[in-house]
Amino acid sequence: MDILRTVSEMQSYADAVHATGKTVGLVPTMGALHGGHLSLMDLALNHADRVVASIFVNPTQFGPGEDFEEYPRDLEGDADKLRERGVDVVFAPAADEMYPHNDHPTRPAPLAWVEVEEFDNVLCGKYREGHFRGVTTVVTKLFNACKPDVAVFGQKDAQQLAILKRMVDELLFDVEIVSAPIIREPDGLAMSSRNAYLNERHREQATVLYDAIQEAESAIRGGEQDANRVVRAMRDALDNAPDARVQYADVVNAGTLTSVETLDRGEDVLAAVAVYFGDTRLIDNVHVRVPAVSSTDAVSADSERAGSAGA
Amino acid sequence: MDILRTVSEMQSYADAVHATGKTVGLVPTMGALHGGHLSLMDLALNHADRVVASIFVNPTQFGPGEDFEEYPRDLEGDADKLRERGVDVVFAPAADEMYPHNDHPTRPAPLAWVEVEEFDNVLCGKYREGHFRGVTTVVTKLFNACKPDVAVFGQKDAQQLAILKRMVDELLFDVEIVSAPIIREPDGLAMSSRNAYLNERHREQATVLYDAIQEAESAIRGGEQDANRVVRAMRDALDNAPDARVQYADVVNAGTLTSVETLDRGEDVLAAVAVYFGDTRLIDNVHVRVPAVSSTDAVSADSERAGSAGA
Repeated sequence: MDILRTVSEMQSYADAVHATGKTVGLVPTMGALHGGHLSLMDLALNHADRVVASIFVNPTQFGPGEDFEEYPRDLEGDADKLRERGVDVVFAPAADEMYPHNDHPTRPAPLAWVEVEEFDNVLCGKYREGHFRGVTTVVTKLFNACKPDVAVFGQKDAQQLAILKRMVDELLFDVEIVSAPIIREPDGLAMSSRNAYLNERHREQATVLYDAIQEAESAIRGGEQDANRVVRAMRDALDNAPDARVQYADVVNAGTLTSVETLDRGEDVLAAVAVYFGDTRLIDNVHVRVPAVSSTDAVSADSERAGSAGA
Repeated sequence: MDILRTVSEMQSYADAVHATGKTVGLVPTMGALHGGHLSLMDLALNHADRVVASIFVNPTQFGPGEDFEEYPRDLEGDADKLRERGVDVVFAPAADEMYPHNDHPTRPAPLAWVEVEEFDNVLCGKYREGHFRGVTTVVTKLFNACKPDVAVFGQKDAQQLAILKRMVDELLFDVEIVSAPIIREPDGLAMSSRNAYLNERHREQATVLYDAIQEAESAIRGGEQDANRVVRAMRDALDNAPDARVQYADVVNAGTLTSVETLDRGEDVLAAVAVYFGDTRLIDNVHVRVPAVSSTDAVSADSERAGSAGA
């Protein structure tokens, strides 16, 4: 497994793969790899002939006061895990490779930006100003540097996934986006590099995020169509953790991320939460299709359908 | 010569060219092709194995009240010229290919944008709000659709060229930008699709743009270092046309487009003008390197250099 440090080496590698008629899969990461990341690598290995894992702690997606400096970095440990998993190349560029024309070593202020408007006014985007603009900009750079045919992103960052899908669609990137399911610890906590920040007490309480999204899922599958009641069920579950400070609990359309008041039959929705334990911010979500016919109103729905067929 | 209408056909063509180890050159145009465009095709043919000319009148780079609806369109005539010139493929997509997710047929309002900040606060950008954001967005789409190794842009649109170079640098596009010199009518008027809008009287007066930038060039080459005096020389030349309404006459750094007060020795500067005749807006510019030693101060410059060498 090679570790490439420059954009030009990376582009040459991708060109060489394509010249042999083979495909490149990309898994963008910020390192500090856990089981969730490794499941993305497996998915990429299934979808592409050669797999590139990028490791870059992207400064422009951290706001002032966020954990850019503290974010865990362990390139050697990460490389061991990736080698063992069968990844072909690690792309680990320095900041000035990804942000040329910038003098500041850790806080570049680029002039060229890629953004997806409106998708960043909700959920995490509401509280992390500029975060998703940093993400779409760096992913564009990674696409141009690694030239992937397929890129894999985790469903855990559901808003990021929706925004990147929209970016790829609108900007006509010839990249297939594959989404990977959330991987959880045995007690249900979604794997995250930030779980390492939690003390024991907070770690125990952190399972309420999974409880909350399970409550949302079962309410929606059970026929609940009032989004406010789904939100209340999530908040009740989160309230069981005395140290939790809820940033948001929300239900939105999974494709457009627009707010949902009434859950329409057959609509794909996202129930999502963000919660602080101390300074550590955790997120979780579930993607659910609102059932076409709920268990409680099967009869009336049937008669409605019969009615419209006869009209 | 093939005329391709969809992004997926275009991408397949580019992939097929690359699979044979050959390169793709792209010349983005809005059609209404004149001799200037054709010189870009020649340059592309010299720089790449296969040449794609795109023809797309991009709605998002026209402001409200600008000439989007009236902009001349002649796909058949353009295709004849390109075929004769030796171009391999015309990429002529419909608006909904370039702007998916948009319902409006002619005025799409996309959510995904690419922009280069600060570079659009000067020259044309100051007067055409959103214009360059439309350009960088559509050129990103064209790059993703056509996958060029080389793209050719005319020096006539000097600000566009500087912005696109910066975009390519920062966003790490693996595309070489080739700039093509301005092609002029016999009397000096820079070729432009918009020259067709001019009546006879305005067409005669329009040569003042070339006069103005020639004045700027000879002043700078002659050792003038006061940008205001260069601007005054340009304005004096433009004043010779009774119907000209000057929008701007300015001198900026050619790389960063930042304002210049004093022209530094060896600095690359751009002297540029925008002028209305009736409703028709014309632009012209010249790229000049400020002489390292002017004819008038060769002696004092020499003694300065000797002085600093001794310090």
